[in-house]
Amino acid sequence: MKGNFERPNIRAMKGYVPGEQPSDQSVIKLNTNENPYPPSPTVFQSLAEFDAATLRKYPSPSALAFREAAARHHGVNAEEIIATRGGDELLRLVLTTFVDPGEKVAVASPAYSLYPVLTAIQDGQLEEIELNDEWLPDERFAEKANEQGCKVAFIVNPHAPSGTLISQSFIKTIATTFNGLLVIDEAYVDFVSDATHDLTHFAVEAPNVLLLRTLSKGYGLAGLRFGYGIGCKNIIHPMITKTRDSYNLDAISQVLAAAAITDQAYAAGTWAKINTERKNLSDTLKTIGFEVLPSQGNFVLATVPTGSLTAEQLFEGLKASGVLIRFFNEPRLQDKLRITIGTPEENQRLITSLRTLLEKEG
Amino acid sequence: MKGNFERPNIRAMKGYVPGEQPSDQSVIKLNTNENPYPPSPTVFQSLAEFDAATLRKYPSPSALAFREAAARHHGVNAEEIIATRGGDELLRLVLTTFVDPGEKVAVASPAYSLYPVLTAIQDGQLEEIELNDEWLPDERFAEKANEQGCKVAFIVNPHAPSGTLISQSFIKTIATTFNGLLVIDEAYVDFVSDATHDLTHFAVEAPNVLLLRTLSKGYGLAGLRFGYGIGCKNIIHPMITKTRDSYNLDAISQVLAAAAITDQAYAAGTWAKINTERKNLSDTLKTIGFEVLPSQGNFVLATVPTGSLTAEQLFEGLKASGVLIRFFNEPRLQDKLRITIGTPEENQRLITSLRTLLEKEG
Repeated sequence: MKGNFERPNIRAMKGYVPGEQPSDQSVIKLNTNENPYPPSPTVFQSLAEFDAATLRKYPSPSALAFREAAARHHGVNAEEIIATRGGDELLRLVLTTFVDPGEKVAVASPAYSLYPVLTAIQDGQLEEIELNDEWLPDERFAEKANEQGCKVAFIVNPHAPSGTLISQSFIKTIATTFNGLLVIDEAYVDFVSDATHDLTHFAVEAPNVLLLRTLSKGYGLAGLRFGYGIGCKNIIHPMITKTRDSYNLDAISQVLAAAAITDQAYAAGTWAKINTERKNLSDTLKTIGFEVLPSQGNFVLATVPTGSLTAEQLFEGLKASGVLIRFFNEPRLQDKLRITIGTPEENQRLITSLRTLLEKEG
Repeated sequence: MKGNFERPNIRAMKGYVPGEQPSDQSVIKLNTNENPYPPSPTVFQSLAEFDAATLRKYPSPSALAFREAAARHHGVNAEEIIATRGGDELLRLVLTTFVDPGEKVAVASPAYSLYPVLTAIQDGQLEEIELNDEWLPDERFAEKANEQGCKVAFIVNPHAPSGTLISQSFIKTIATTFNGLLVIDEAYVDFVSDATHDLTHFAVEAPNVLLLRTLSKGYGLAGLRFGYGIGCKNIIHPMITKTRDSYNLDAISQVLAAAAITDQAYAAGTWAKINTERKNLSDTLKTIGFEVLPSQGNFVLATVPTGSLTAEQLFEGLKASGVLIRFFNEPRLQDKLRITIGTPEENQRLITSLRTLLEKEG
C-alpha cells in the first residue's frame, strides 16, 4: 500500500478518541469535563496586553516564568516543576523518558483511555489492575504492580471516570511500596472539597512520585493546552532537558497560564460554585432513581435506574435534545453515564431532559 | 540515586541546546533564524478579536480550520496536511510513528542538531551521510541510505546551516531511489528566490515523501510554535489519528496560524526584503574577507578570513558588542559563523562590529 511505513505496534493500535466538540454553540456541553466558567479576568487582561510583534521570536524554551509562578503557589522549587502542553504531554513524556519498549505500565482501571494508547505508542505492556467495588485502587495495587515488574504506575486522583477520592495515606502507602515511578494524575484535584488534601510536598520529597496538574479543568483553560508536573528534580530534569520538544509551549500560553495560576482567588471561586452544584446535581439524580458515586471531581458517574432506558439510550436521547454527556461502552461502565458539572442552568436543562426521557419511557 | 528511573538510552544522551534567548531586548539577535519582521497585520487583528472566554472549551483536536486554510494555499487536500506544534513536533512524530527502536535513520550532515537528539530518544541508529564539498547531499545519498537499511531519511532544503538549495530534480531522484520515508525539512523554503521551486504536489503524489513546513521563519511566528507536514494520506493519517497528542495545538495558535497563512501577500513582502538583504549582507561580508556559501535561507554561513580571529573569537567578540550570531563547535563548522538575516539596520550593526573586531586584530 502507498506510503505504509508504520511501525507494527502503531499499525496495530487504535488512536485516542476525544469527546465530541460540536460546532453548534447552543449544545449544553457536559461531556468533556470542561469548567463551565471562563478563566480569570487576569487571563483576559494578559491576552489583551499581549503584543503579537513579540511572536517573531522564540519563546522561553522551558516556560521559566510560569514554572516560577507555579513554584511560588505550591511552595516548591521551579526545578521541581515541568510545564507541558496539557497534561497529555506530561503523560507522553513519562513513557518516553522512563519506559523502555516491552516494559510494563500499571494502571488502576477502568481509567482515562489515553493511558493504553500512550503505552501502545511506546510499545510498552499495559497491566490493568482492577479498581475495587468502591472504584478505589485494589489494596494490593503496589504489590501487584511490583509482582508484574511494572516500571511506571498511573493512578488518577480524584479518579476518572468515577470521581472517587483516594485518601492521602493510601496514596503514600502505594508510593512507598511501589518499586517504580508512581504518576498521580491530579487533573481534577482542584475540585476536592477537603482543603488539607495536598500531596505536593510529599511528591517533591519522595524519590518516585510525579504529580500531574492541568489548567484545563480547574482554571477554565482547556483551549490553552497547559499543564505541569511536580516531582523531585531527578524525575523532572531529564524530561525538561532531554525528551521534551525543545520549545513545547508557545509564548502566549506561557503568559496566560502564569496569569491564571497567580489568581487563585478567582479559580477557587469557580471550584466552590462547581462543588455546590455537584452536590445539588447528585441529590437530584438520586431523586429520579440514579445511583451516584461520591465525586470529588467536576463530574459525576451515575448508574441509570434499572428497568428503564439503557445508559446508551439515555445518552442518545439527551444528545437529540441538545445535551451532550459521556457514555463509555466499556466493562463496568455500560450502565453508567459520566456527567460534567455545568452551571446551575445547564444542570437544570440536563435534569429536565432526563425527566422527559424517563417519563416518556414510563 | 533518588528518582533515577531514566531509560538507558535517555540516561546516555544529551539534550538539544537551543540558541540563546537573551532577556536584554537591546541585543541584535541574529542567532536563531527568526524573521526580523513582525507577523501579518491579520495576526494582530485575530489576536485582538480572540475571546478568552472560549478557552474554557477544548480546541479542535486536529486544527481543522488551519489545515483547510493551508490546503487551499497549497492546492492539496486537508487530509494531506497535519498541523503540529512547530516543525519539531512533526520530526518527533515521524520517529515515533515510523522508526522502531534499533532501526536506522539517515541524515545528510552536518545538519540540524535536533535530528540526532530525536533519534536517540527513539533509540534509533543515526547514519550520517556526509554532505559533499558544495554542502549538497552525496550523489549516492539514497543508495547509501538503502545499503544501510534506513527506514527514514532527513534532508533539509534549503540546507541548514549552509543555506544551499538542492535542486528539485535531485530531490525527486533521491525520493524515487530511497526505499524508506524521505522527510524534506523545508523550514526555510519560503526564502527560496526561485518561485518555481515547489515540491508540494510531488509530495502528495509520491508514496514516501513528507514535507515539513513551519510558520516560525517565513511567517514571523517562532513564538507561536506552529508548523505542518504535507504528504500522502497514508503518511499523514497515522500521525493525526494515533501518535499525535490528542489536542496538540491550543485554540489561539490555531486561529492565528490560519490568519498568517491566508495572508500570503504580507509574508511574501517580508521574504523579498530578507532576500534583498541576504544579497547585500553576503556581498559586504565578501568585501571584508569572508567566504559566503550561496544561501537560499534567511541566514548565511560565512567562513572567517584566515590569519585573523577564529570564528569562535569573532562570535565571542560580537556577543560582547551586543550582536548574537551562531557558532557551532562541530566538524566542518569550526571556521564558520551562521548569521541570520536581520533588518538593514541590524545587518549594518553586525558589519560595523565585525569590522571593528577585525581591524583591532589587524
